[in-house]
Amino acid sequence: MIINGFSFAAVSAGLRYKNRLDLGLIVCDQPAVTAGMFTTNQVKAAPVLLDIERLKQGKARAILVNSGSANACTGEIGMADAHKTCGLAAQHLGIDENEVLVASTGVIGERLKVAGFEAHMGELVAGLRHDGAVDVARAMMTTDTVEKSAFRTIELGGEEVAIGGLAKGSGMIMPNMATMLAFVMTDARISFPQLRHCLKNSVAASFNLITVDGDTSTNDMVLVMASGHAGNRWIEDVDHPDCHDFGAALAEVLDELAEKIVADGEGATKLVRVAVGGAKDDHEAEQIARTVANSSLVKTAFFGGDPNWGRIVAAMGRAGVRFRPELVDIACEGIMLVRGGVWVGEEAETQVAEAMRAPRFTVSIDLHQGSGAAAVRTCDLSYDYIKINADYRS
Amino acid sequence: MIINGFSFAAVSAGLRYKNRLDLGLIVCDQPAVTAGMFTTNQVKAAPVLLDIERLKQGKARAILVNSGSANACTGEIGMADAHKTCGLAAQHLGIDENEVLVASTGVIGERLKVAGFEAHMGELVAGLRHDGAVDVARAMMTTDTVEKSAFRTIELGGEEVAIGGLAKGSGMIMPNMATMLAFVMTDARISFPQLRHCLKNSVAASFNLITVDGDTSTNDMVLVMASGHAGNRWIEDVDHPDCHDFGAALAEVLDELAEKIVADGEGATKLVRVAVGGAKDDHEAEQIARTVANSSLVKTAFFGGDPNWGRIVAAMGRAGVRFRPELVDIACEGIMLVRGGVWVGEEAETQVAEAMRAPRFTVSIDLHQGSGAAAVRTCDLSYDYIKINADYRS
Repeated sequence: MIINGFSFAAVSAGLRYKNRLDLGLIVCDQPAVTAGMFTTNQVKAAPVLLDIERLKQGKARAILVNSGSANACTGEIGMADAHKTCGLAAQHLGIDENEVLVASTGVIGERLKVAGFEAHMGELVAGLRHDGAVDVARAMMTTDTVEKSAFRTIELGGEEVAIGGLAKGSGMIMPNMATMLAFVMTDARISFPQLRHCLKNSVAASFNLITVDGDTSTNDMVLVMASGHAGNRWIEDVDHPDCHDFGAALAEVLDELAEKIVADGEGATKLVRVAVGGAKDDHEAEQIARTVANSSLVKTAFFGGDPNWGRIVAAMGRAGVRFRPELVDIACEGIMLVRGGVWVGEEAETQVAEAMRAPRFTVSIDLHQGSGAAAVRTCDLSYDYIKINADYRS
Repeated sequence: MIINGFSFAAVSAGLRYKNRLDLGLIVCDQPAVTAGMFTTNQVKAAPVLLDIERLKQGKARAILVNSGSANACTGEIGMADAHKTCGLAAQHLGIDENEVLVASTGVIGERLKVAGFEAHMGELVAGLRHDGAVDVARAMMTTDTVEKSAFRTIELGGEEVAIGGLAKGSGMIMPNMATMLAFVMTDARISFPQLRHCLKNSVAASFNLITVDGDTSTNDMVLVMASGHAGNRWIEDVDHPDCHDFGAALAEVLDELAEKIVADGEGATKLVRVAVGGAKDDHEAEQIARTVANSSLVKTAFFGGDPNWGRIVAAMGRAGVRFRPELVDIACEGIMLVRGGVWVGEEAETQVAEAMRAPRFTVSIDLHQGSGAAAVRTCDLSYDYIKINADYRS
């Protein structure tokens, strides 16, 4: 993944574990138009608070990211530490501290090991290179089992534009822009309001429609930086076709990252799409899809490969949306399991059980009450989720 | 547990498994004043729909309860089956069919094995005896590991009144009168409005403040039957001290049953009380307590004995209640772990980790914003929850 104007580096700074990449840096060779979206959790980590403030200027030069500590719930000391680490990066890069954004992930409540940043910042900056994105993706992993990236190129007015994204999951993954870190770099020429507009729409259709465990983190953010190195005509109008095309490509990148996050959800063995149609409106469809996708009982049944549609119906019934149970159809991978609120029969169930052995499948619910639709992606709930989370800190 | 006027029986009717009690009967020797509360799930099982209708008359003679099938999402056939089984009981008891209530628990969506009811109803009725309550408690167990009962006697105006309750859990346990079956028998003389009043208050303070997995069942109900055999003056005024005293004793019985349900939550190894104080009002305190108590990440940390207060704070932050993170105190069993939003230190954490090894402990959260308070009881999330639910139906 090469994006004009950007360079990347990562080092092992010993922030929590030895000999693993845990500190990454993304740098643009000039101030990049930058937009961000942040966790909806009321408790926001220091880096989130700092970045929200800094992004009011709509541009940035660098993103400093660490794993090992979330620098959340660390009070004024945590805020001072966030400032200090940005300052260190700015100093070594020879840029203004206000142009450095920071992101942290890891255990909540513990202080950032600032000494690790101090000892390794020189090495980090010295290692910057255009093809180093994958190292940054690795440096921000926590319980992730694979690094996550996505890349697209599009033509805008005959000029090639590149969009590349990096992301990490994989617990505390829950809708409402919670959940994870994702950084997207593009060489597009695009103004701040248009970039923010495209980001907002793309997040609504991707990260906000996934769930791993229904928990929303204190630290999560999506940042998109545009270097302006591509040759495209400046995107300055949200209604211009170029803005639509750029937005569509950005949405694809975020969607791929979102899917990779769910697929690598803690302990996940299956990726399941819960698609609801026939609702009164899209909002109600989403509420039902979200409730089903978040149900521990439904998710353990997915793990067991059990077509336990009763749990799906029970979850639907507590979603806070009015519907007529006697009209509900439920299908899995096109095989109808429930028709008009009642079980189709043994044969269908056997077929669905077979379909559920696949690592990816779709559960479709039709309420037959209107044309509202939404889909939420989730993963199953397995022994390994418990294993990972019962002693994450030790 | 003996309550004047009531007799109990249970048999193995082979409704799902062989050689285990799965069909129970509770009978009053005269029409008992009867009140009920039912699941808030929009999808209601046939027995729930039937009982809601029948309880409009405020009295009943019998409760027929089975495990093995929930008779939910079974459409008109399920409703016909519910009627048929009540009719069978009525016929053998020589009472009116409308005086029989029915409750079912087990797998959703499968038809009730009516043949099992037909073959064993004679045996069931013949087995009725005053001291058979524990058999009924056993017959309604599903993933429960122990049968659950509670018993109190009180004096009202010098006369002894007995209250005994039976309950089953232990998955799909979630606030809002979802969650389980509970039957309470008393010999008190009490009129319907007063009985319903006492039941409503008691449920709000007990079953509605527990959670196992955040899922709400389609089948759950609490029924209370009063035979009127005790010598107490009729309770006909909610403001009379006798009604207060009766209500308090009923609340104790339901509270004990609720606690037993959480302690026997699917896979549970620990019972945890999440107590929130200092909120703007009780409702906001309850919302925060509920969100923390339902968080999979918090519950797995309980299982691992990890004082992971960061997850508690993160869950609080998504509860939809405004609070000031920098004022929050969190303690476990009286040991302060977080003060003013930040970690107290290593020593406190070691002590809390020690306290969390106990099978029961309390996590206390103080928001320092008012005098609202609430406590929700929950259990930990363990490997066994996954094991139980990944292949519950096989």
